[in-house]
Amino acid sequence: MSQMPSLSQLQQPDAFLRRHLGPDEAEQRAMLEVLGLASCDELIVQTVPPAIRLNRPLDLPKALDEQQALAKLRGYAEQNQLWTNLIGMGYYGTITPTVILRNVLENPGWYTAYTPYQPEIAQGRLEALLNFQQLTIDLTGLDLASASLLDEATAAAEAMALAKRVAKSKSNLFFVDEDCHPQTISVVQTRAQAFGFDVVVAPVDNLAQHQVFGALLQYPDTHGEIRDLRPLIEHLHGQQALACVGADLLSLLLLTPPGELGADVVFGSAQRFGVPMGYGGPHAAFFATRDEFKRAMPGRIIGVSKDARGNVALRMALQTREQHIRREKANSNICTAQVLLANIASCYAVYHGPEGLRRIAERVHRLTAILAEGLARKGVQRDNQNFFDTLTLDVGGSQTAVIESAKAVRVNLRILGRGKLGVSLDETCTAQTVEQLFAIFLGADHGLSVEELDQGVIVGGIPGDLARTSGYLDHPVFNAHHSETEMLRYLKQLENKDLALNQAMIPLGSCTMKLNATSEMIPITWPEFANLHPFAPREQALGYKLMIDELEAWLCAITGFDAICMQPNSGAQGEYAGLLAIRRYHESRGEGHRNICLIPASAHGTNPASAQMANMRVVIVECDQDGNVDLEDLKLKAGEAGGQLSCLMATYPSTHGVYEEGIREICEVIHSQGGQVYMDGANLNAQVGLARPADIGADVSHMNLHKTFCIPHGGGGPGMGPIGVRAHLAPFVANHPVIELKGPNPENGAVSAAPWGSASILPISWMYIAMMGPELADATEVAILSANYLAQRLGDAYPVLYSGRNGRVAHECILDLRPLKAQTGITEEDVAKRLMDYGFHAPTMSFPVPGTLMVEPTESESKHELDRFIEAMLSIRAEIAKVQAGDWPAEDNPLKRAPHTLADVIGHWERPYSIEEAVAPSDHTRAHKYWPTVNRVDNVYGDRNLFCACVPVDDYRE
Amino acid sequence: MSQMPSLSQLQQPDAFLRRHLGPDEAEQRAMLEVLGLASCDELIVQTVPPAIRLNRPLDLPKALDEQQALAKLRGYAEQNQLWTNLIGMGYYGTITPTVILRNVLENPGWYTAYTPYQPEIAQGRLEALLNFQQLTIDLTGLDLASASLLDEATAAAEAMALAKRVAKSKSNLFFVDEDCHPQTISVVQTRAQAFGFDVVVAPVDNLAQHQVFGALLQYPDTHGEIRDLRPLIEHLHGQQALACVGADLLSLLLLTPPGELGADVVFGSAQRFGVPMGYGGPHAAFFATRDEFKRAMPGRIIGVSKDARGNVALRMALQTREQHIRREKANSNICTAQVLLANIASCYAVYHGPEGLRRIAERVHRLTAILAEGLARKGVQRDNQNFFDTLTLDVGGSQTAVIESAKAVRVNLRILGRGKLGVSLDETCTAQTVEQLFAIFLGADHGLSVEELDQGVIVGGIPGDLARTSGYLDHPVFNAHHSETEMLRYLKQLENKDLALNQAMIPLGSCTMKLNATSEMIPITWPEFANLHPFAPREQALGYKLMIDELEAWLCAITGFDAICMQPNSGAQGEYAGLLAIRRYHESRGEGHRNICLIPASAHGTNPASAQMANMRVVIVECDQDGNVDLEDLKLKAGEAGGQLSCLMATYPSTHGVYEEGIREICEVIHSQGGQVYMDGANLNAQVGLARPADIGADVSHMNLHKTFCIPHGGGGPGMGPIGVRAHLAPFVANHPVIELKGPNPENGAVSAAPWGSASILPISWMYIAMMGPELADATEVAILSANYLAQRLGDAYPVLYSGRNGRVAHECILDLRPLKAQTGITEEDVAKRLMDYGFHAPTMSFPVPGTLMVEPTESESKHELDRFIEAMLSIRAEIAKVQAGDWPAEDNPLKRAPHTLADVIGHWERPYSIEEAVAPSDHTRAHKYWPTVNRVDNVYGDRNLFCACVPVDDYRE
Repeated sequence: MSQMPSLSQLQQPDAFLRRHLGPDEAEQRAMLEVLGLASCDELIVQTVPPAIRLNRPLDLPKALDEQQALAKLRGYAEQNQLWTNLIGMGYYGTITPTVILRNVLENPGWYTAYTPYQPEIAQGRLEALLNFQQLTIDLTGLDLASASLLDEATAAAEAMALAKRVAKSKSNLFFVDEDCHPQTISVVQTRAQAFGFDVVVAPVDNLAQHQVFGALLQYPDTHGEIRDLRPLIEHLHGQQALACVGADLLSLLLLTPPGELGADVVFGSAQRFGVPMGYGGPHAAFFATRDEFKRAMPGRIIGVSKDARGNVALRMALQTREQHIRREKANSNICTAQVLLANIASCYAVYHGPEGLRRIAERVHRLTAILAEGLARKGVQRDNQNFFDTLTLDVGGSQTAVIESAKAVRVNLRILGRGKLGVSLDETCTAQTVEQLFAIFLGADHGLSVEELDQGVIVGGIPGDLARTSGYLDHPVFNAHHSETEMLRYLKQLENKDLALNQAMIPLGSCTMKLNATSEMIPITWPEFANLHPFAPREQALGYKLMIDELEAWLCAITGFDAICMQPNSGAQGEYAGLLAIRRYHESRGEGHRNICLIPASAHGTNPASAQMANMRVVIVECDQDGNVDLEDLKLKAGEAGGQLSCLMATYPSTHGVYEEGIREICEVIHSQGGQVYMDGANLNAQVGLARPADIGADVSHMNLHKTFCIPHGGGGPGMGPIGVRAHLAPFVANHPVIELKGPNPENGAVSAAPWGSASILPISWMYIAMMGPELADATEVAILSANYLAQRLGDAYPVLYSGRNGRVAHECILDLRPLKAQTGITEEDVAKRLMDYGFHAPTMSFPVPGTLMVEPTESESKHELDRFIEAMLSIRAEIAKVQAGDWPAEDNPLKRAPHTLADVIGHWERPYSIEEAVAPSDHTRAHKYWPTVNRVDNVYGDRNLFCACVPVDDYRE
Repeated sequence: MSQMPSLSQLQQPDAFLRRHLGPDEAEQRAMLEVLGLASCDELIVQTVPPAIRLNRPLDLPKALDEQQALAKLRGYAEQNQLWTNLIGMGYYGTITPTVILRNVLENPGWYTAYTPYQPEIAQGRLEALLNFQQLTIDLTGLDLASASLLDEATAAAEAMALAKRVAKSKSNLFFVDEDCHPQTISVVQTRAQAFGFDVVVAPVDNLAQHQVFGALLQYPDTHGEIRDLRPLIEHLHGQQALACVGADLLSLLLLTPPGELGADVVFGSAQRFGVPMGYGGPHAAFFATRDEFKRAMPGRIIGVSKDARGNVALRMALQTREQHIRREKANSNICTAQVLLANIASCYAVYHGPEGLRRIAERVHRLTAILAEGLARKGVQRDNQNFFDTLTLDVGGSQTAVIESAKAVRVNLRILGRGKLGVSLDETCTAQTVEQLFAIFLGADHGLSVEELDQGVIVGGIPGDLARTSGYLDHPVFNAHHSETEMLRYLKQLENKDLALNQAMIPLGSCTMKLNATSEMIPITWPEFANLHPFAPREQALGYKLMIDELEAWLCAITGFDAICMQPNSGAQGEYAGLLAIRRYHESRGEGHRNICLIPASAHGTNPASAQMANMRVVIVECDQDGNVDLEDLKLKAGEAGGQLSCLMATYPSTHGVYEEGIREICEVIHSQGGQVYMDGANLNAQVGLARPADIGADVSHMNLHKTFCIPHGGGGPGMGPIGVRAHLAPFVANHPVIELKGPNPENGAVSAAPWGSASILPISWMYIAMMGPELADATEVAILSANYLAQRLGDAYPVLYSGRNGRVAHECILDLRPLKAQTGITEEDVAKRLMDYGFHAPTMSFPVPGTLMVEPTESESKHELDRFIEAMLSIRAEIAKVQAGDWPAEDNPLKRAPHTLADVIGHWERPYSIEEAVAPSDHTRAHKYWPTVNRVDNVYGDRNLFCACVPVDDYRE
């Protein structure tokens, strides 16, 4: 009989760890050999300062395999209850067309893509985003739209900030209609307080009593009323103030758009265009304004430009991103978007087209009108005279009974004070829903029939003078893809234009493009996670609670913090939320005057922008020649700040890719002056399991769940930036006006629309940690190993700018292109674009040091892929040498002409290099060619000739 | 207040019909205009003979929208019960790696692809299939493997047929070990009976008593025993007979492969390599034999050849397909495969690699050994001495009690006679499963601990002299993609090589490549459909029963038949099953001598092959010059056959793409001679809602659910070919030895392994019909409109060979390339390959008429796509004109050189036409280029130098 290994020896094959890590053990050994090391331990000892090492395993449960983790989370999901949600308040039932669900939301070709900073390999999602902008422009009636903001409430805050920036009014007061959604009001109040704006929240009729720089109106308002905004807007314009209007996207198909009423900014949520409610997010907010305010526009805008051949090419216009953020001059720190969700919404519009969308809106409105008519006939009082989809009903003393009737049939209504109830209908509602509502409000013997009512005279809820007369969505893209086959192919065409993680490594320094495992992604589209309303009673969301509580506990174990605030839905939001907590903490101790924020020169651009948003004064601390924080300068600046010192914001390991030895001392310097330490979590992937921010000395830090904890970048969002805090800061993090959170002080305002931010993507991080357990440390070690392997192999060709102890880098490294540029004229951009010809996404360009490339391989890239990248970089170095040697002219060589496209190949080829050298310079490209679809994009042309809507078809033909 | 349409007017936007149809109403009108017609009705009147028109709506329920249909089916699914299935018998729990689940099984890039008849645009799935063959070769220890058969039981029947073909023994007797799986025995018996072979089913020790041409053995056998096959095989070889061995793929990782023991054929199911049980299928069967028998190999084989540049290129070798089937000389009618499932199994092997697979097998075996040890210690008798994963236990009088204990914890065991129970463990089993089994067999106080047993001495179940010593899967492809990132990219690379419906129309005559809608596909991977064992107690499969019963009723309503047999899992299987029913019917009336089968000359090649398999004598009926059945010849042949006439096999509309006017008369001629009419269902898509086979006169017909009813082609399978029969034939269709079906006579044998064939893909057709309802007729009309539109627009450039009444074609049309070939030397193959350069899959080539292309657009292609195809064809016609005019040399032009690849472009370009003309000859290709990855494949070279395993890496480098 045969020999058998024991069971325990046989459990390994399914372990997730070996699926998550790129290099297997043999490959790791080979990489260590190149570094002259015998073990990974040895590397870590050489790399991570002993003073900060966590010398024990992370206190996490034993790793589950993929099936076990899915089964456990499935058990949680089943504890969420899927009731019919008619709560409204900005969140509505919607149907994600299954062709979009499968081929966008569940497709790694879309969800693993990066932010389209490299437009030549991102024309697909750029086109989808342009469609989103066109949709926004058409439905709002304004000139210019952005490519999405984080959520409706933060978009409102951005509108306020824009108003302050551009309004000629000198007032410091912002007026908020009290009939806006409560979470919108809270986020605006929080933001205003931070900025130092005054806010009045009052009935909209009081507007005339105030001198303001702007006002926030809602259309239809949170109770469903539709008001003619023209008189209000005229009043605002009369005092040189801006009208900012929150609007419901579906209603705009039937309502006169706010832009036509004179609004200056129109924003709202695109959630109900096919994006599941997801217990609060992620969703895309839309944001539109007048052309004259384009330079003040927050967030990303996709613009039309041309490429080197003069062909139409899209790219991000007026780039506002972490590296480009206006730092201390910012009054927004927004540097991301909700690309995946905006694209789902734009694809929903493409699939339904203008007529299909209008019918959806008309059906929702008709159902609401029938409901209104039936209830009116039976004497139920209604508060709002006009309506689109929402009725506010006054049931007086029978409120409790009605609520109980609703519960009995698993229907959630909006519960308002003083005997009032709100009902909002949506795309998923049918005649049966209305029948059910009749029974809820009137009892089983209501004697009404939807069918009969529908055949009779039904009065609509939209005032005649506010009925939409202008057309929309007449661009061909919204009128050509209404069969599933056409839609499928359109989505595939867009996907095929783009390079995502499913095709190649995306070695972006500071962005940690690691594996987004399928098993991590599967739960997010389970209906039990996807279809919960964020304001549903908490007992219906027990599964979410179990999952979030556990995730918070795990993140505490990983970071050493005492509490987590899940609300911030991006990294920059996390910074802002963390700084607000610091500010409130100081205020609680009577030290509200502490307002100086020290920031090292190497920081992410969001850091000073966030500090500015928290009304702090930014003081820059210099770096020394090794790229480390200059300790002497820090001491000096901290000392100068003294009792004014609020905090330090620092990234660790540093943005220079180095574990600074002095980090503990840095924290001590700050603490000794009564300041707090904010640790930017961008590089947390280099700490997990090896060191913990709180142990090092941080008081608060955000975690980019979309970098370190596997939420995919989605082509530029969603992100999640929860913050961890030490106990003394825990009372000062965000709370929520609708769903009160336990822990933070009740009076703390919200920073995002939903209580737990983008809750529906938290299962991704939960799954990752559940499947990795204490072996998370292995991932960190392999990430460090891979970065050092790259640095070692590339260092001769491209000097590594900074290194730490023993010449080692952390989890990323900066390659210095400046000497080559000086010698040859070849720039870091040329190399970045040339990498596309080799089938790679470029590393991070010119951040944090101009003229460099920052490379972060992550732990998920195999040695095979690392070697492919190295070979491409070395081959490019040889190409540069040919330019240097004069074999190729300085301006006519594969680097300057990169990337190359089909258009080059089929054009008249008269270049000093061959077509093969141009488009197939490696074995890999000859076997698996990825083609950039446009030549190098002309950014300057695009910004000078700003055009941010769908290109007329004829232009493409030129 | 605004005007509102009523609810009923507003229900349309979500209707599935407008998603399924390509052309919308405006496009339909434009197409009709080209035909000079005012309405679709007018076209149908001109096209479909009035005598056969169904002049009423189909008796189907009102169409549901996508959400309603999904919700209804979800309700059925929830009535299936997911117990732990330890029944074995060829079906085992398995874990589909989620990266494969999402990126292959749920990815239209894989599932909408067609059979790889055009290898230049199918290298991705051809490579995956080659991996499947390599996997089969390595694990079975034989020389040559096929690219999958339909299931294990039909593979056994094919093995028998092969043995008969090649064995030198003159015996007519086939020996079957009684310890084979019962469904295998039944399918083999059915097939043997049809062929007229004698079969003996007996204990394997009796083999020596018989003179045979072959024997069927099983390893391990159905009760888990593992026997040294060498003496048996030696005995067989001694009498010049073949040894056919059914084997378990997972066990072969630990067992000496049958090939090394001397077996001539080894086959089995690859289901447990990651393919869900799916209540019986679809799964891929593997099949391997000796090199010397390669010409007798059933089904498809992928072979390595070279392309026009001499590069490695894969393609189907020794093409065995419907058009190429050996017609009357056949003893197999197999013309399809289970490509999608074979590819999942091969990807499972690629992902786990040899070590991962071995660990899975060892874990299953270890768990089984611990179970065996524990039960033995407690005195439970075991029947099989050796084992891999299956134990047959003798519990005597406590059988009922044990079964009840198992039921109490929702565990299914195999229930055998005489107090015996079978237990088969699998990849999903854990120590907890074994603990549970201890409790089931021994009661709660069993006092055993898996952990303790595991630490003690455990005797394995594999005899030492049958332990595997040879290696396997050492080809790089099985050793490089073990991280999820690498696997994801490998899958993407393969997908990117192939052209599927998600990129372009696949206008294949006779193959009906219509939309495979996402909502149709979603249910098949619901665990409640995916994870049921086909032999689970029927009360656990109530959801399946509801769904199948309803689908059967709907198919009866559509075809006019009285009963449906769901068992045949391909169209050819349906033909065979239908002919068997006819044969049994005649026999039941004492007319067993009726054995002549009339087949028109234009028939699919499978028709005569199937007739041959049913032991009928094929007589060909000629066609007249219009392509119709020659009625006079039919009458003559039918008269000559007289009392010997068994049946006619006819396709309707004909394979010439025409509604023959005489079909009713044809049927009457056959019936008047006492014959039956078998209607080949290949063209049913042209009848649905307009005419019904049974009304026309058919007695039996198969329905290709993968053509007419939206099951995707999967790159060459799965298919489903259920048959509809009139009441008099209903008792004579297939039954099943394990799960007895109601209706057919109990003594009827099985034609496929599982009672309802590939049950898990039936939800696709259920969804389609549920969402279309009576509007199915609209689809048929649009399919006819589209074909006529194509015929009209292309007819001047390429003569349409056949047409019917009023010059109209049915749902497809044949373009005659022969005149052009005579004039220019340009062949139909040149045009087919040139279409690839334009981004299209070729139409069907040279079937049913050599030198032609048969085009079937289906109802799902938009006018936009039809026009794109027409423009490509007209552009190609202009290219032919340039050859004709002498502008381009006869052998050096874009047609003869097609398809063009990157290798052409980067090579030294010295051709009389430009690179642009070669690779980007249209607007579409300039914007959305799809690149074939190899140049034209040399089939002759490949067949002369047959090589059907993974190419050594060095060969690629040459």
